[in-house]
Amino acid sequence: MITIAGLRDAIAAPAPEAAREARRHLDTLTKPPGSLGRLEELATRLAALTGVPPHVTQPVIFTFAADHGVTAEGVSAYPPSVTAQMVENFLRGGAAVNVLARDCGARVVVADFGVANPIGGLSEIGGALVRCPLGAGTANMTRGPAMSRAQAEAAIEAGARLVMDAIDGGADLVATGDMGIGNTTAASAITAVVTGAAAEDVTGRGTGVDDEGWRRKVDAVRRALAVNRPDRDDGLDVLAKVGGFEIGGLVGVILGGAARRVPVALDGFIAGAAALVAATIAPACVHALFASHRSAEPGHARALAWLGLAPYLDLGLRLGEGTGAALFVHLARAATRVYAEMATFKSAGVDGPA
Amino acid sequence: MITIAGLRDAIAAPAPEAAREARRHLDTLTKPPGSLGRLEELATRLAALTGVPPHVTQPVIFTFAADHGVTAEGVSAYPPSVTAQMVENFLRGGAAVNVLARDCGARVVVADFGVANPIGGLSEIGGALVRCPLGAGTANMTRGPAMSRAQAEAAIEAGARLVMDAIDGGADLVATGDMGIGNTTAASAITAVVTGAAAEDVTGRGTGVDDEGWRRKVDAVRRALAVNRPDRDDGLDVLAKVGGFEIGGLVGVILGGAARRVPVALDGFIAGAAALVAATIAPACVHALFASHRSAEPGHARALAWLGLAPYLDLGLRLGEGTGAALFVHLARAATRVYAEMATFKSAGVDGPA
Repeated sequence: MITIAGLRDAIAAPAPEAAREARRHLDTLTKPPGSLGRLEELATRLAALTGVPPHVTQPVIFTFAADHGVTAEGVSAYPPSVTAQMVENFLRGGAAVNVLARDCGARVVVADFGVANPIGGLSEIGGALVRCPLGAGTANMTRGPAMSRAQAEAAIEAGARLVMDAIDGGADLVATGDMGIGNTTAASAITAVVTGAAAEDVTGRGTGVDDEGWRRKVDAVRRALAVNRPDRDDGLDVLAKVGGFEIGGLVGVILGGAARRVPVALDGFIAGAAALVAATIAPACVHALFASHRSAEPGHARALAWLGLAPYLDLGLRLGEGTGAALFVHLARAATRVYAEMATFKSAGVDGPA
Repeated sequence: MITIAGLRDAIAAPAPEAAREARRHLDTLTKPPGSLGRLEELATRLAALTGVPPHVTQPVIFTFAADHGVTAEGVSAYPPSVTAQMVENFLRGGAAVNVLARDCGARVVVADFGVANPIGGLSEIGGALVRCPLGAGTANMTRGPAMSRAQAEAAIEAGARLVMDAIDGGADLVATGDMGIGNTTAASAITAVVTGAAAEDVTGRGTGVDDEGWRRKVDAVRRALAVNRPDRDDGLDVLAKVGGFEIGGLVGVILGGAARRVPVALDGFIAGAAALVAATIAPACVHALFASHRSAEPGHARALAWLGLAPYLDLGLRLGEGTGAALFVHLARAATRVYAEMATFKSAGVDGPA
C-alpha cells in the first residue's frame, strides 16, 4: 500500500559516486571538458539519480485534470466547461501536449482527478481516461479549505500509485502535466504560502485575464490565504486549504518518482507549486526534479528559486498540460545519447590539450 | 553559376502575408492565444519565410572544417592536429554533432575547407568527406590578411553551392556547424570589427585557455585588427583579413539558404561571426536566420544583438560543430507539428473565453 509516510521514508539524497563517475566519463569524450554545458550537467544529474549510464527510453507524461471552486471569483479568462472539453481533446490526441508528446516519443496518461462537468463521448474517443475523481472540483478556497485533509492525502496517493504503475511498466522518466481552469490561482496561493512571497508577485495572467481579472485574482489569493491560514511547514495543510485535486495528484507523481529514483520532469507553474508541496513533505525529493522550463507566469521563477532548480528552457510558455516537459524530453534524451554514443579521445585518436 | 552578387540579388525580406496567416491559424488552436510563447513565434517566422504550413522534414547540418594560422600565437588549448583528427571523428560518427544529429534526424555534411594536416584513413571511414580546400589553413592574421579576397569569395561560393545542392535534394532546414582549432580567435576578431566592440569584450576561453592564454588571445585579436584594418562595411574584406576558410563556407550556407528562402539555423559563436559577415553583404538575410542558442562565448551575445536575433536555447554550450543547431532542430520540428497537428477550438468543441 502506498502511503505518504512510506514515500517520505523512501526518499533520500543520492550518494555522490554515480555523479562523480558520470563526470569522469564525460571528460573522456571528444570535446573540451564541460563544453556541452547544461547537457553535461543534465546527464550527470540523471546519472546521480539512477546510476550510470543515464537513460531516457520510456518517458511518460501525467496530465491530470480537475476543476477549481475559486473560478466563482472570476479569476479565469475561460469558463470551467473548458476543463472537461480539454480532457476530451487530450483523449482524442488534438491538444498541444499530445502533439509534443508524439514528437518526443512520450506516452500521455490522462487522469480525471475531479473534473466538474461530464466528460462526454468517451465510447467514441480512442484514448483511455484514468479515473481518480476526488469530487466535482474543489470548494471555493476564498470561503474555506479547497478540500479536506483526507482528500489531499488521497490525491497524493492516487498520483503516486499511477506513477508507480508506469515505472513498473518500464517508464524511466516521468513528467508532470495539468489541466484545470482556475489552477494558476491555486498555484499562486501555494507559491505565496511556501515561498513567503506577496500574492501580487506570484500571481500572473493565467490563460490571459485582463487587468481587472488580474486584480480579482490577486484579491482571491489574498482572501484564500487570510481565510485558511495554511501552515507553510505542512505541505498537506497547504494542499488541502489552497490547492487542487490535480495538483495533489502531481505531488504524488513527484514523491513516487523520487521514491523510485526515476527522474521527474516538472512542467511549468502548476508543477512548480506541486513541487513546493512535495518538497515540504520530503525535502530530498528535489534531487529527482528537473525544471523543464521557466514559465511566463511570474510565480514560477520564485518557486524554482525556492526549490534550488535552474530551468533548462525559457521559451515564454504558459500553457501547462505537460507541454514544456515534453520539449525537455528531447534535451534529456540528447544528454543520455551524448553520454552513451560519443567517441573518447582515446578511441578516436584525438590529441588532448597541448 | 553561383556568385556573391547573384546571392545578394536573390535575398529580400519576406512579404508579411504568410506570417499574418500563420498567426491567425495559431490563434484558432486549442490553447490560449500566444500561450506556447516562442514556439508560436518560431512557427510564425518559419512560415513567414517559406509560406504556410511551415515544415521541417529534412534538416541538414553543414560542419565545415579548416585550420587557422593564428594558432601560432598560442591562442588555443588544443594543438592544430585536432582539426584533422576531429574530421576523422565526424566521418566515423563519434563526435557530439553526429550523436545529436542522429537524435534529431539531421544529416551532417562534413567538408574540408582547408585543414592543414592530412585527414587519415579515409578509405576505412564510412562517411563521405566533401573537399573544398582553399589552402593548408589560413595565414597568421596577426602578420597580415588571413586569406586573399579571391579565397574569401571562393569559400563563400563553395558553401553556397553545397547548400544549394542540399536544398535541391529536399533539405528544408539547413544549419551551420564548424571545426577549426583557433577559430574562436577569428570569430572574436570578426565580431569586434563588425559590432565595434572591444577585443576583450568579445574574446572568450574557446576550448578552454587559461588566463595567460586568454590574454595572448585578446592580444592576437588586437594585433590582427591593427595590422589589417578591416573595413567593417565590407564583409568580404573582414572575412579575408581576419576570418577563416570554414567561416567563409558558412557565410555561403547562410546566403544560399536565405536566397532560397530556406531557414538557416545558426549554431554558436562561429556561426554568429559568419552571420555578421553575411549580413554585411546582404542585410535581409537575417529574416532567414534562427539563433539556435546563446553560446557561453561572451562575443556571441554581442553578435546576436547586432543581428537582432533572440536565441532559443541558453545551455552554456561552447563546443560548436553544429551541436546547438541540432538541439534547435527539435524545437523547430515541434513548432511545425503544433501548427499542423493541433485541433482547433471549433473542431474539438472547446469553448472560447467567457
